[in-house]
Amino acid sequence: MKIAQIPPLYEAVPPRLYGGTERVVSNLCEALVDLGHEVTLFASGDARTRAELVVVRDQAIRLDPAPLKSDMAAHLSLISEVRARKDEFDIIHFHTDMIHFPFFEGNAQRTVTTLHGRLDLKDLPSVYRRWPKYPLVSISDAQRGFLPFANWVGTVYHGMAADLGTWFSPRPRGGYLAFLGRMSPEKGPDRAIAIAKRLGMPLKMAAKVDTADEAYFRERIVPLLDDPLIEFIGEIGDAQKPEFLGGASALLFPIDWPEPFGLVMIEAMACGTPVVGYGCGSAPEVIDHGVTGFICANEDEAVEAVHAAQRLDRREVRRRFDRRFSATAMARGYLDVYADRLAKAPFAPELAQDDAEMIEHTRGQASFAQIA
Amino acid sequence: MKIAQIPPLYEAVPPRLYGGTERVVSNLCEALVDLGHEVTLFASGDARTRAELVVVRDQAIRLDPAPLKSDMAAHLSLISEVRARKDEFDIIHFHTDMIHFPFFEGNAQRTVTTLHGRLDLKDLPSVYRRWPKYPLVSISDAQRGFLPFANWVGTVYHGMAADLGTWFSPRPRGGYLAFLGRMSPEKGPDRAIAIAKRLGMPLKMAAKVDTADEAYFRERIVPLLDDPLIEFIGEIGDAQKPEFLGGASALLFPIDWPEPFGLVMIEAMACGTPVVGYGCGSAPEVIDHGVTGFICANEDEAVEAVHAAQRLDRREVRRRFDRRFSATAMARGYLDVYADRLAKAPFAPELAQDDAEMIEHTRGQASFAQIA
Repeated sequence: MKIAQIPPLYEAVPPRLYGGTERVVSNLCEALVDLGHEVTLFASGDARTRAELVVVRDQAIRLDPAPLKSDMAAHLSLISEVRARKDEFDIIHFHTDMIHFPFFEGNAQRTVTTLHGRLDLKDLPSVYRRWPKYPLVSISDAQRGFLPFANWVGTVYHGMAADLGTWFSPRPRGGYLAFLGRMSPEKGPDRAIAIAKRLGMPLKMAAKVDTADEAYFRERIVPLLDDPLIEFIGEIGDAQKPEFLGGASALLFPIDWPEPFGLVMIEAMACGTPVVGYGCGSAPEVIDHGVTGFICANEDEAVEAVHAAQRLDRREVRRRFDRRFSATAMARGYLDVYADRLAKAPFAPELAQDDAEMIEHTRGQASFAQIA
Repeated sequence: MKIAQIPPLYEAVPPRLYGGTERVVSNLCEALVDLGHEVTLFASGDARTRAELVVVRDQAIRLDPAPLKSDMAAHLSLISEVRARKDEFDIIHFHTDMIHFPFFEGNAQRTVTTLHGRLDLKDLPSVYRRWPKYPLVSISDAQRGFLPFANWVGTVYHGMAADLGTWFSPRPRGGYLAFLGRMSPEKGPDRAIAIAKRLGMPLKMAAKVDTADEAYFRERIVPLLDDPLIEFIGEIGDAQKPEFLGGASALLFPIDWPEPFGLVMIEAMACGTPVVGYGCGSAPEVIDHGVTGFICANEDEAVEAVHAAQRLDRREVRRRFDRRFSATAMARGYLDVYADRLAKAPFAPELAQDDAEMIEHTRGQASFAQIA
C-alpha cells in the first residue's frame, strides 16, 4: 500500500528527547516499511527514517534556534505540500489534530486521522461536528469519552520497537521505583514521592520541566526532593530508558488527568517492569491488572500494589508487551483501519492488483496476531 | 456595500484592556456603519457593535476562564462559519493572518486580508508564496519589507474614533512623560526610563506584563523603578487613556523592533500629545517629524527631542490625527481597497444596482478626503 504519514513539525521524527506523537509516527513508519509497504513521511529535515522522506522544513520547530517562528504557517505549508501530492497515495494518515480538515474535504474517506491528545478542550466538539467525514482513530477507548459523537473508526494502541536484548531486564537490578515523564500536576510526581516515602523505597525521577510547569516544579516538587530516598535526574533520552526502567522494581504512574495513552507504561513493560498506575484515562486499558501491573485508586492501594508488583512474572510482562504494544502490532492495527477505509472508499484506479493482495495478506496477519 | 469583518477570537471586540487587532476591527466596523454600509462582524459574544453580530464563540479566548481551550479549533470553526455564509457578502475582510487561506481559494479575489503583526518570522515567506492570490493590506509600508514579493494591494493606517472633547488636551497638565504598552524588550521601557532620568522629568509607565515577559520585567525593569521620578501604574483601559496621555508633555516610544503600526502613537496624537519615537518600523511613517513629534536615533537625540516636543503646537498634532488617523480615514482607505477588488473581481450576480452606486459614492468621498 502507498501510505503517507503526516506528523506535526514540533519535534524531529523520532524526537531527540521528550516527544510522544513524533516518536509514535516514527515507530509506525518503520514497522510499515518492514511489512513491505511504500511509506512517505512528510517531516522536517532532521528526521531519521527508512520511509521516503519529503522535507517540508529544515528542522523541527521546538529546538529550532530561530528567534521568530510561526507554528501555524509551518503547518499550513506542510498540509499544502501533502495536498499537492495527494494522488500518489492510497491512504493519507494525519497526526495533526485538525489543521488538515479544510484541505481534504473532497477526499476525507482516503484519510485517517489519529488524535494524540486529550480531548476535553472547550473548542473541540464544534470542530468535530463541522467536519464529520474525517475518519478518526483513538489511541485508547477512554480517549473517546469526551467526543462520543465523533466519526471514530478504530482504536489503535501505541506501539514501539524494543529489542529484547536491549530492553528486557529479568531482574530489577536497581531495586528502586521509577518515575518518568513531565514534572506537571497531571503526571502526579508529588504522589509518586509520597508513595515511595511510605514504602521507604528509593525513587528515581527522570522528568522534563516545561516552561509552563516551572513554577509548579519550584514551589511544589523541589521542597519534596530534599530526602535521601528521592533522586531527580532530569530529562533522559531513549538510549537511557532501558537501563533506567529495567532497573526499577516498578514504574509509578499516579496520574491525575485523562491520559490519552501514556507511552511510558509500555516502555516499562518492554523492560519487564510492572506498572503501578492510577485508574485515569487509558491506564486501565493499557495495564493488564494483576499481570503487567496494577490499577489503584489511592495511595494506600498503590503502596500495596508496589509490594504485589514485585511478585509479578517480568517475562510475562514482556510477553504482553510483545503481543499488544510492539510497533508491528500497532502497524497491523492501522493496516486494518486503512483496509476498511479503502473497502468503503472507491479504489483509486492506479491501485494495482498486487497492492490489493498485500492488503489482504497483512489483514490476515493482523487477525492471527490477535488470536495468538 | 455588504462587508464581513473577521477579527481573531483572542480579545473581545473591542478588547476590555490591551489588544490591538480587535480594537482596530471594532473601529473599522463602527466607521463603516456610519458611512452607510451593511457590516457583519463574526466574533465572540462579548463584542459590542452596531454591525450585525454573528456569535461564533461565547467569549473571547484570552480572558475565558475555561481551563482547556484550543485556539486552532476556535478559529477553524470561525472560518468555517464565514465560508458557510460567504455568498451574502460583497467583500470578506480577514484579520486572521493566514488560517483562512485553505478555505477561500476559489474566492480569494473577493477577500481582503490585513496583516496586523510583524512579518519577519521564519515560516511566513513559504505561506505567502503558496497562496499568492489573496490580496493583502499592510498597516505601514515598512511592514512589507520582510515579504516584498507578496500580493500587496494597499497600505491602510490604523484609525480610531477619538471624540475631541474627551481626548484632546490643549495643555499637558501633568507635566510628565508617558510610556504606554507592554513591558517587553522590543518596546524599550528601559530606554524610556533612561531618557526620563537624563531629563530629570517624571515618567509614568502604564504597561501590561505578559507571562512571556515576566522574567524580563522582574530582572531588567523592576530594579530601575526604584527612583522617585518613575511611576509604574500597571495596565490601563481605554477609558483612562485620554487623561493619562493628554496629561503628558510627550509620549516616549523608544522601540527596538520592526513595529508594524503602533496604536499608542495615534492615541497620543488624539490628545494633542507629541511622540518622541525611535526610527524603527512604522514610526517614521506615523510621526510627522517636527509636527506631531520626532524620530530619534539614540538617547541623546531623544533628550533633545523631548525639549523640542514641548514647543510643538498640540492643536496641529490633533489636526494631523484627524486627517490621517481617524476611524473614518481608515474606513475610507479600506473602501478604496474594497472597490478596487470588486472592480477586478467579477461582480456577484446578486449585487444590486444601489450597492454599485454606493461603491461609487464612497469612492468619491475617499478621493475627496485624500485631496483635502
